[in-house]
Amino acid sequence: MSTDFSATRAAFDLPEGIIYLDGNSLGPLPRAAAARVERAVTGEWGRMLVTGWNKAGWMDQPSKIGNRIATLIGAEPDSVVMGDTLSIKVYQALASALEMNPTRRVILSDTGNFPSDLYMAEGLCRTLGSGYTLKTVAPEDIAAHIDETVAVTLITEVDYRTGRKHDMAALTARAHAAGALTVWDLAHSAGAFPVYLADCRADFAVGCTYKYLNSGPGGPAFIYVAPRHADTARPALSGWLGHESPFAFDTTYRPGTGIERMRVGTPPVLQMAALEASLDIWDSVSLNDLRTASLALTDRFIAGVEAACPTLTLATPRDHAARGSQVSFRHPEGYAIMQALIARGLIGDFRAPDILRFGFTPLFIGAPEVDAAVAVLAEVMDKSLWDQPQFKTRARVT
Amino acid sequence: MSTDFSATRAAFDLPEGIIYLDGNSLGPLPRAAAARVERAVTGEWGRMLVTGWNKAGWMDQPSKIGNRIATLIGAEPDSVVMGDTLSIKVYQALASALEMNPTRRVILSDTGNFPSDLYMAEGLCRTLGSGYTLKTVAPEDIAAHIDETVAVTLITEVDYRTGRKHDMAALTARAHAAGALTVWDLAHSAGAFPVYLADCRADFAVGCTYKYLNSGPGGPAFIYVAPRHADTARPALSGWLGHESPFAFDTTYRPGTGIERMRVGTPPVLQMAALEASLDIWDSVSLNDLRTASLALTDRFIAGVEAACPTLTLATPRDHAARGSQVSFRHPEGYAIMQALIARGLIGDFRAPDILRFGFTPLFIGAPEVDAAVAVLAEVMDKSLWDQPQFKTRARVT
Repeated sequence: MSTDFSATRAAFDLPEGIIYLDGNSLGPLPRAAAARVERAVTGEWGRMLVTGWNKAGWMDQPSKIGNRIATLIGAEPDSVVMGDTLSIKVYQALASALEMNPTRRVILSDTGNFPSDLYMAEGLCRTLGSGYTLKTVAPEDIAAHIDETVAVTLITEVDYRTGRKHDMAALTARAHAAGALTVWDLAHSAGAFPVYLADCRADFAVGCTYKYLNSGPGGPAFIYVAPRHADTARPALSGWLGHESPFAFDTTYRPGTGIERMRVGTPPVLQMAALEASLDIWDSVSLNDLRTASLALTDRFIAGVEAACPTLTLATPRDHAARGSQVSFRHPEGYAIMQALIARGLIGDFRAPDILRFGFTPLFIGAPEVDAAVAVLAEVMDKSLWDQPQFKTRARVT
Repeated sequence: MSTDFSATRAAFDLPEGIIYLDGNSLGPLPRAAAARVERAVTGEWGRMLVTGWNKAGWMDQPSKIGNRIATLIGAEPDSVVMGDTLSIKVYQALASALEMNPTRRVILSDTGNFPSDLYMAEGLCRTLGSGYTLKTVAPEDIAAHIDETVAVTLITEVDYRTGRKHDMAALTARAHAAGALTVWDLAHSAGAFPVYLADCRADFAVGCTYKYLNSGPGGPAFIYVAPRHADTARPALSGWLGHESPFAFDTTYRPGTGIERMRVGTPPVLQMAALEASLDIWDSVSLNDLRTASLALTDRFIAGVEAACPTLTLATPRDHAARGSQVSFRHPEGYAIMQALIARGLIGDFRAPDILRFGFTPLFIGAPEVDAAVAVLAEVMDKSLWDQPQFKTRARVT
């Protein structure tokens, strides 16, 4: 049955007594990851020592795993490579894109972007000087601001606060029509729904693996460069593993072929081992089925919460096409509410100033968890009388 | 007894039948690391899920571990933080230093620097434009080239090929006298001998942990910023975890206090767990005793090889003050010789074009291993008749 995720669910080691609606922050532990990491530690590092770089294939992991990620984000073969953190990869993609569009000076982003993306862009602009600026507009206004001054757009497809999903195809087309390049941040997209980088003609994309892809805390990031750019993009962060011939130890940099040039330093072998195990689960997943299941779960949660908790205000679009795989509600006492939920075993996230955020991950979350989550939320909202003036003296005893 | 390293030796899981003189490339597995990583995977990630960032202390690990590294490199408390790779940290330190010395345009380095440092510097100069250049001279000439044009020196203390050790105190003093700042790469220093960053008044330093510090393949790097600079240095790679208040999710960057601003993205929790276990071993080590033992081992190896293998040419300084913790010999057929040594269980490194490199790590290598290594090398050099014209048809059958 296509939308039966019982097999993937069984592949995760989930604690008892927890409803985990935070897989969009940190995915849970795949059962196979523990053994895979243990093998990397004792079987590979312990027994092979330095020869593991070749014998255990550590050196090739960033590209091999990159190709597995590529299949999840609609990317061409050999267009994705792993390494570093998402913030670093944002910098690398932006710096490359700016250099490919040298007559323009504006990075355009939106206030719904994850702050680290904005910070990295700001830092890059300050390093570049020469009039480079980061222009930030409201998410709903971004299309209107893509004009002939924009060198590159830096857009996170799904808003980490609201779950609002941008239209990648339309915004990319608009950027190209205006002569701008695109950097897409897929932090809340990869593993959340089908992504079509190649079909959208995206130029660059970046993402992390510890959210929907369940690679564990601090798992490596990925970077995508469209094959049409891959042999011309210059990696500003030009490390030895992106060199054409790293082990020649030349004193002069020559970029490697294609996406390989976006590698920088020594890859995190233990984190990659966990990622490898988590990707095995994805081998059997249809992203279309996942999307169907995700929308059913988020619809169900929205309906349940709206019926039970009238003081919570939906922050997530009702329109399926504009929704990622999370649901958020606003409440002025959101922080305290989330503490109360967590105390009852319902784990979501609070995001300042007033967002309660719940991630829906069909690989291990189904309708029973949604219904249980609604019940906990209803209980907390009812019991604690959040809208009473005396709230602050009573809220946190839960 | 001060130079008895039997306890540290017992703390490592070393394969049988191997003489491992490559701890300067990748340190071996500390026995406790396997259990510590397993705890991070199943006990922390698996049970705590996203709450591990606080409950398991993941978020504070980069600073806590940074303070442990600080004690090994003569750095002040709260002056070191972990993250990213060495190449990334080179870029970050250089970009900060250049901005602190805005009237100058030259990064001065030497050809004995590790190529990735040079590549990162080259990439930064291209990104900066405006006349920024990387000037590279022979290692022995670097002092003479520190003049009033130099904004910052980028020097790796120990040459990865020859083991030649620069005089950090003298070069730093000279740089300061010329109005230049210093970035020291401690890749082959940290854990190899005592380092005195504070005493030398170094400005910035960077290093990796997977060599002498035994954190495992892809372990995180570190960055040091002298406390006198830490609140003014601007991190070009300005990620959210270096923000003054990461969880406020402001759209504008404000650098955090002191060294914390040098953090970028999500730290690699599994790699840090391995590093934490490896640092436990260092708690009982006197760096002065380590240095005494290291020099005794490298002296013994030099004497043994020179007596037994007359066709090998020493590339490492005989002067103790100018030697790191490795010994290198040159031979035109170095690559093939190293393959033959590895086939016999003696693991060292080949570095193009002609360097045979052997690392000496008293934590787990003693005089018996040195003598055994000399014997293997003598056998290989004798048997294979490397200097005969017919060499190539016979060498690799060993």
